[in-house]
Amino acid sequence: MVVRSRLDREMDEDALRLTSSMDSDRNIFHYDLLVDYAHVIMLERQGIIGRESAGKIISSLREIEQDGFENLSRKFEDVHEAIEAKLIEMAGEHGRRIHTARSRNDEVATCLRLFARDRILDILAEILNFRSVLVKRSFEYVDAVMPGFTHLQYAQPTRLSHHLLAWHDMTWRDFERFLDAFKRVNLSPLGSSAFSGTSFPVDRDFVADLLGFNGTVENSMDAVSSRDFLTECIFACSSLMLSFSRICEEIILWASEFGFLKLPDEYASSSSIMPQKKNPDVAEIIRAKAGKIIGMLTSAMAIYKAMPFAYNRDFQEMNRILFDVMNETLLSCRVMVGMVEKIEFNLEVMKDKAGKDFSTATDLANLLAEKGVPFRTAHRIVGELAKKGNCTPSANEIMEVCRKYGVEITFDDDELRNALIPELSVERRRSSGAVSKENILRMIDSRANAIKEDERKLVGMKSRIIQSVNRLYDMVRSYEG
Amino acid sequence: MVVRSRLDREMDEDALRLTSSMDSDRNIFHYDLLVDYAHVIMLERQGIIGRESAGKIISSLREIEQDGFENLSRKFEDVHEAIEAKLIEMAGEHGRRIHTARSRNDEVATCLRLFARDRILDILAEILNFRSVLVKRSFEYVDAVMPGFTHLQYAQPTRLSHHLLAWHDMTWRDFERFLDAFKRVNLSPLGSSAFSGTSFPVDRDFVADLLGFNGTVENSMDAVSSRDFLTECIFACSSLMLSFSRICEEIILWASEFGFLKLPDEYASSSSIMPQKKNPDVAEIIRAKAGKIIGMLTSAMAIYKAMPFAYNRDFQEMNRILFDVMNETLLSCRVMVGMVEKIEFNLEVMKDKAGKDFSTATDLANLLAEKGVPFRTAHRIVGELAKKGNCTPSANEIMEVCRKYGVEITFDDDELRNALIPELSVERRRSSGAVSKENILRMIDSRANAIKEDERKLVGMKSRIIQSVNRLYDMVRSYEG
Amino acid sequence: MVVRSRLDREMDEDALRLTSSMDSDRNIFHYDLLVDYAHVIMLERQGIIGRESAGKIISSLREIEQDGFENLSRKFEDVHEAIEAKLIEMAGEHGRRIHTARSRNDEVATCLRLFARDRILDILAEILNFRSVLVKRSFEYVDAVMPGFTHLQYAQPTRLSHHLLAWHDMTWRDFERFLDAFKRVNLSPLGSSAFSGTSFPVDRDFVADLLGFNGTVENSMDAVSSRDFLTECIFACSSLMLSFSRICEEIILWASEFGFLKLPDEYASSSSIMPQKKNPDVAEIIRAKAGKIIGMLTSAMAIYKAMPFAYNRDFQEMNRILFDVMNETLLSCRVMVGMVEKIEFNLEVMKDKAGKDFSTATDLANLLAEKGVPFRTAHRIVGELAKKGNCTPSANEIMEVCRKYGVEITFDDDELRNALIPELSVERRRSSGAVSKENILRMIDSRANAIKEDERKLVGMKSRIIQSVNRLYDMVRSYEG
Amino acid sequence: MVVRSRLDREMDEDALRLTSSMDSDRNIFHYDLLVDYAHVIMLERQGIIGRESAGKIISSLREIEQDGFENLSRKFEDVHEAIEAKLIEMAGEHGRRIHTARSRNDEVATCLRLFARDRILDILAEILNFRSVLVKRSFEYVDAVMPGFTHLQYAQPTRLSHHLLAWHDMTWRDFERFLDAFKRVNLSPLGSSAFSGTSFPVDRDFVADLLGFNGTVENSMDAVSSRDFLTECIFACSSLMLSFSRICEEIILWASEFGFLKLPDEYASSSSIMPQKKNPDVAEIIRAKAGKIIGMLTSAMAIYKAMPFAYNRDFQEMNRILFDVMNETLLSCRVMVGMVEKIEFNLEVMKDKAGKDFSTATDLANLLAEKGVPFRTAHRIVGELAKKGNCTPSANEIMEVCRKYGVEITFDDDELRNALIPELSVERRRSSGAVSKENILRMIDSRANAIKEDERKLVGMKSRIIQSVNRLYDMVRSYEG
Repeated sequence: MVVRSRLDREMDEDALRLTSSMDSDRNIFHYDLLVDYAHVIMLERQGIIGRESAGKIISSLREIEQDGFENLSRKFEDVHEAIEAKLIEMAGEHGRRIHTARSRNDEVATCLRLFARDRILDILAEILNFRSVLVKRSFEYVDAVMPGFTHLQYAQPTRLSHHLLAWHDMTWRDFERFLDAFKRVNLSPLGSSAFSGTSFPVDRDFVADLLGFNGTVENSMDAVSSRDFLTECIFACSSLMLSFSRICEEIILWASEFGFLKLPDEYASSSSIMPQKKNPDVAEIIRAKAGKIIGMLTSAMAIYKAMPFAYNRDFQEMNRILFDVMNETLLSCRVMVGMVEKIEFNLEVMKDKAGKDFSTATDLANLLAEKGVPFRTAHRIVGELAKKGNCTPSANEIMEVCRKYGVEITFDDDELRNALIPELSVERRRSSGAVSKENILRMIDSRANAIKEDERKLVGMKSRIIQSVNRLYDMVRSYEG
Repeated sequence: MVVRSRLDREMDEDALRLTSSMDSDRNIFHYDLLVDYAHVIMLERQGIIGRESAGKIISSLREIEQDGFENLSRKFEDVHEAIEAKLIEMAGEHGRRIHTARSRNDEVATCLRLFARDRILDILAEILNFRSVLVKRSFEYVDAVMPGFTHLQYAQPTRLSHHLLAWHDMTWRDFERFLDAFKRVNLSPLGSSAFSGTSFPVDRDFVADLLGFNGTVENSMDAVSSRDFLTECIFACSSLMLSFSRICEEIILWASEFGFLKLPDEYASSSSIMPQKKNPDVAEIIRAKAGKIIGMLTSAMAIYKAMPFAYNRDFQEMNRILFDVMNETLLSCRVMVGMVEKIEFNLEVMKDKAGKDFSTATDLANLLAEKGVPFRTAHRIVGELAKKGNCTPSANEIMEVCRKYGVEITFDDDELRNALIPELSVERRRSSGAVSKENILRMIDSRANAIKEDERKLVGMKSRIIQSVNRLYDMVRSYEG
Repeated sequence: MVVRSRLDREMDEDALRLTSSMDSDRNIFHYDLLVDYAHVIMLERQGIIGRESAGKIISSLREIEQDGFENLSRKFEDVHEAIEAKLIEMAGEHGRRIHTARSRNDEVATCLRLFARDRILDILAEILNFRSVLVKRSFEYVDAVMPGFTHLQYAQPTRLSHHLLAWHDMTWRDFERFLDAFKRVNLSPLGSSAFSGTSFPVDRDFVADLLGFNGTVENSMDAVSSRDFLTECIFACSSLMLSFSRICEEIILWASEFGFLKLPDEYASSSSIMPQKKNPDVAEIIRAKAGKIIGMLTSAMAIYKAMPFAYNRDFQEMNRILFDVMNETLLSCRVMVGMVEKIEFNLEVMKDKAGKDFSTATDLANLLAEKGVPFRTAHRIVGELAKKGNCTPSANEIMEVCRKYGVEITFDDDELRNALIPELSVERRRSSGAVSKENILRMIDSRANAIKEDERKLVGMKSRIIQSVNRLYDMVRSYEG
Repeated sequence: MVVRSRLDREMDEDALRLTSSMDSDRNIFHYDLLVDYAHVIMLERQGIIGRESAGKIISSLREIEQDGFENLSRKFEDVHEAIEAKLIEMAGEHGRRIHTARSRNDEVATCLRLFARDRILDILAEILNFRSVLVKRSFEYVDAVMPGFTHLQYAQPTRLSHHLLAWHDMTWRDFERFLDAFKRVNLSPLGSSAFSGTSFPVDRDFVADLLGFNGTVENSMDAVSSRDFLTECIFACSSLMLSFSRICEEIILWASEFGFLKLPDEYASSSSIMPQKKNPDVAEIIRAKAGKIIGMLTSAMAIYKAMPFAYNRDFQEMNRILFDVMNETLLSCRVMVGMVEKIEFNLEVMKDKAGKDFSTATDLANLLAEKGVPFRTAHRIVGELAKKGNCTPSANEIMEVCRKYGVEITFDDDELRNALIPELSVERRRSSGAVSKENILRMIDSRANAIKEDERKLVGMKSRIIQSVNRLYDMVRSYEG
């Protein structure tokens, strides 16, 4: 072991198995090398190590990079130690200089932030795809009438396009949350060393810049000891997955007895025993992943609670949670895009059921209210009709019940018929953000523009980072030549 | 019951006890009245109800407001129904008009957002107080040396002021998170009605403005069905409470065997049996509240998972969680401000222990590295001294071990002594954000400025809202005259 | 304050508000008095305090009991301190003797266990009621055929009675878990004092016996410091609530588009705007409570994690969780009993849909398999028919597809028809525990017997405790005479 | 794909990656083969398939078993499908018969229970080892005095042996919980098929017996749809890990400033930068795992909540949680045994600090109480001394304070000295379960006997299962001959 200078005996084998993070560190192997490159280049630039050492170290690291993670020995505490051990094997005394002016504490914190930053960008891109699909499909079905539900009971007629836009707006906020998290994630802890900084004349800003960070986490104690960026990333993922879980729940319901959609074969499974089955397994798994990730957020927070400063090994258990949550969220995003893009909506079924179970009863109550009946009285009058099971009352029947409540109004069967037709019902709802066509078209338009804007923003964020990393690799190559 | 028009029988008593939210709705009693005022004023302005009805409703609501929450009957499903019932009792037919063009779905969502918005502002103000105390105390102890820990083992000397600034920066990010949440919270769902909007010509923007919102949640389905704003608020609270839990853990440890501080009596308890005890109960309770709130976030998310659109009664269980979490977080903030302000640090004890357990070993290794020894070799050499228990080696002893590792360097006891003195150790750490005095003074200065900036921002947010609500009450009074 | 002997200043008001448990201690007011009675009687019996003191203390406690919890001052840390303070007020110097040989540490642990024990017994009784209702209703609908689902898709015909028995068996195991928890709950910590026991000659077994405990938690450190009994109780509640959440989910689905049941008015709500609505609010709230209680278990565990011995104030935050979880679980139980008892099943709808979506496809595959076709091949053959949308194939059509797979079999349309009739399908499933009538009748019979057995067990547990408490009150009265 | 008979297109690649459980199914590869063997033998015994088919299937399965999990293709939904596909490849038409009279629903439920059952037995064995170590070390240090803490403040003197016995008793209850869980786990769902049983004449009891189960989960719907056995196993693990987290917290504290123990090198790490460090990483990781597993329980419950009957793919996400939790708990157990066995306690330090911070103040108050001063008054008198910082008052000083409170007592300095000596203090505490030597010896004795008893019980449980599995393999071999 590289770091056990003062200990006489190796770690117990079971204890090493329990405590080593080697397996999940595959997620940061690449980032650890980036950090190594940037750190070594800075050390040489600041005169802390010599050109020869820097060159030897960098060319060895390049080899390690090409060999890949799978060729690292698993018998180390973590990937940082494994790489350093291999580096020393390859570059000898030079390799023994890489850990000058740093600690695993700032090293791992930096790797985690690089991982999280890149995953955020990937997830943002997929959410944008998802939003695009929803806006596109909204436009496709802009007129389609469907039943709306509360408490899973038929409530009022609505429009499929409006419903899909609700899905859009929900995930739009998730998009925003990832953007907010990014601000706090893309900062460099490197140079904080164990927690008190270092007496070597390091240049933290230079390193931060090379790695595409937007700045540093300044206070060195804070930089190595804080994991709120990590819990925030997991929360942003949880929130997105909860949004997906709601959409998947509706997909599962709508593919079932409601009959509102057909699943694409590519996103369905069958049964090992019941040959007729076509099951929404993919939607179920995403729903379940949401449940899983709720718990993973809990895990991260329960681990983090009451951790004294500075570094504690407990933090390591949070890393794997971050990796798994962000990887699974990203994959779920991709699958959601494909699944929602290919779902076949049964517009006829939706239309047929739009007026089911007296779902235009509110329209009838509103009609009475417009005629001067206090709404609560109108509600009671219509409720009494519903209680009797009379969901298609005639004007006369209504007026009769009205009279019971001391209400004298007149209206004809035409007015009544209009009130009860789902297509007219939705079109009447012209309040801002409601289900009238004009509203929907306006919302489609504004969301399409917002997507374009967000795409521009995302391209900007990505290209800034790519430029930095390209510049870093240019420098790396300059040592090899 | 006001709304059970179509049901024959009252709800079972146990079932009502289980499902009624009356008790916790005390948190939104005030907000429900604000919503009622704004809604009624808008209804009249849009010609949906008459001036007389509006006047009668408003003067009755004023009475209800003055009577207070405690005078409402508890036999209702929720505060909305209770207020409407009482209003009808008082204002007769006029009262039966208040629920025109709205639903409890948009009503409760609006109340929740008003509650959350105001609590965020209160919490922001308290975090600012907390940050101010920390910066002030940092300045007070700018020179004080203390031991720093990793894994709760003596690690390196550091400075109390630097440590307090780490506490500051951690909670500063929590401050930012509440600001981000505010953007998504302070939007009005009102006018979305059940979920599809309304056919009455309501003016959503006018109402939003009266209530001090920054805009509306546009899509009416999204507006009544989404609770991600709620989970985000709870997450922001959790994150802050986790920060507090870490600080409290250190307070508990430092008040114990470490001996770094004395608790003020006002924030300590004693024992019912052991008369000599002075216990950190307050810090323990805040630590425990952090654990509790982790679970409350879990609760909210587990409830929310897989909820189909639009409203489901499950949402109601999330409300009480929001109330409790934000109330307890706010109170915890207040207590943290007072406790941290009054803690008495034992600077002498800190100073005495700053060099304990060979905590300047890194300085010694760095000294060797500066003389050309590869850091990893230097680490091993010093590690070997540590293993032998020799924590105050002479220059000769060190050179002897060096030779064992094939390292030939020379240095005298003065250099050595300097390396091992905690006060010099901290001052050598001049990397950006590290523990040298210059760094600390710079950080104190920039944090003090940031606090001023944040205060200005917060005052702006608050005054905008206060103006709106004042204007609303002016209108209310104009009906009463 | 009673216990702050060594502190100069009172606790800060906000801090007291944050840390006091007075409000939720109403749950253990009664139990604290029981503990006081038993402790004082024991003290006198052992000669630790005199007869006069004991008498004065007990008569004052009786008054406090009659005054009730509401008359206690709220300005104390907890109910124990509040009662002792009032006692001293009433009984003077005698009252100052009650805390001899005990600590709040063992006192509160005892109160919690008494509370938990009694709630377990109440919950057990309600689960028994629930199980009885299910067995009764199973018998009522023993023959009724209904569709069975996997992945919420029509899968195979089944029987309502069999389904209700599945609900029964699931909650039966919850019953068992509460029984198991009871063994570890109903033990007395009293006499452990702060954690190291006491030098006074107390009789722990005598007190345990008076309070109806089955024994003591022997090790005094363990007795005051362990809360695994508490997390276990919460887990048992969570598990039961999860069972209920599954049943409620089915009630919500079945009351919706599936149309399998009608909710009794007493367990339904309506809408404030949509007069026709009949909503399953009660089932939704119970489903949500399950989500809430998952988080409350999390809270308790997150608080408890890494707590050093012995008592820490953090434990107090776990108490309220215990109270709320057990109270809400008990109330949920009661409501479940009433709701499930009164649900009106739509047997006709169930029957009509039992064969929907080719749900007897497995029967057809089995028929082929019985005729020698390997099951996996039979599955493919029937799957191909399903793919074509042919859910009522003729014998000829089937044989044609068979030939495609190289399978030569013959059978006539009668065999085929039999295979596809839901009523025959269920009756064919005679494997142990399956849906044939014989199986179901046997299961009904054995469950009815198990319920009787469990009732006897429960009566035994309860009467043992009641006798103890009655004996304790007899003693109490003997002091008053 | 084996089971997608009715679907035209293969699953989308990302969707398959998201939904396939192949990777974690390595945990049940072995169990799936056991289930296959038992099922096939039963099918042949009942005349459902022929001897030749059974033989071919079994010999192919044997090959698959010898090839091992790593040689299965990863492109399947799960291990069940992968094995069946390979089997069909190897045994042709015969292989296509294995899935007769069963479904993956009952198959996977059976595999999970076999996994859980075996892990429970392993964990039980390790807890027994842990308990033995604790009892052994208690006996070793039966006399050693140490300080006891509440709120992490010096409270009263206690004994190390008594403290270790508290650790024992806490994990003893965890042992009991695993035993209770075992009763509900070791039951066979096999033969329940999709959920309604099967029309083939299977013998469920025979299969259950072959697999070493204690019986069947009778109701076929319940058998495939219930996962409360799984959450219970995870809870039992969580509870044990919470116990470990508390012990680890004390190990971390005691290895730090308290100085009560030295960690064995095999269970410690060092630092990559600070060469002098010896860190309790192993204890920290176990503490963190406890936090992680709290969240994993949450995950499982959040997934399970509101799952309708029968099988939903969501269940699959619970499987990996079960595997990971039980595997990590088992490994943690092993490490705890080793670590606690090798810890070196610093008895001298403990002894020196046993009386620190006036920790015998209670003894002094008790002394006054024994002399007739009401305990609460005695508490105040001693508290006043403590407030003045007088922790070694003379008899005169005490009597003076007493007089202030109107208390006239006399006692000499000898009595006083005795009261304040930690060794005498612990020996005075003779209440049942307290820290006097006699109590401790009695508890050691009874725990040693309980361990022997539990060992006997465990051996019985294990050998019953081993016999069954041996018999099953005998039958398997009889087909191969």
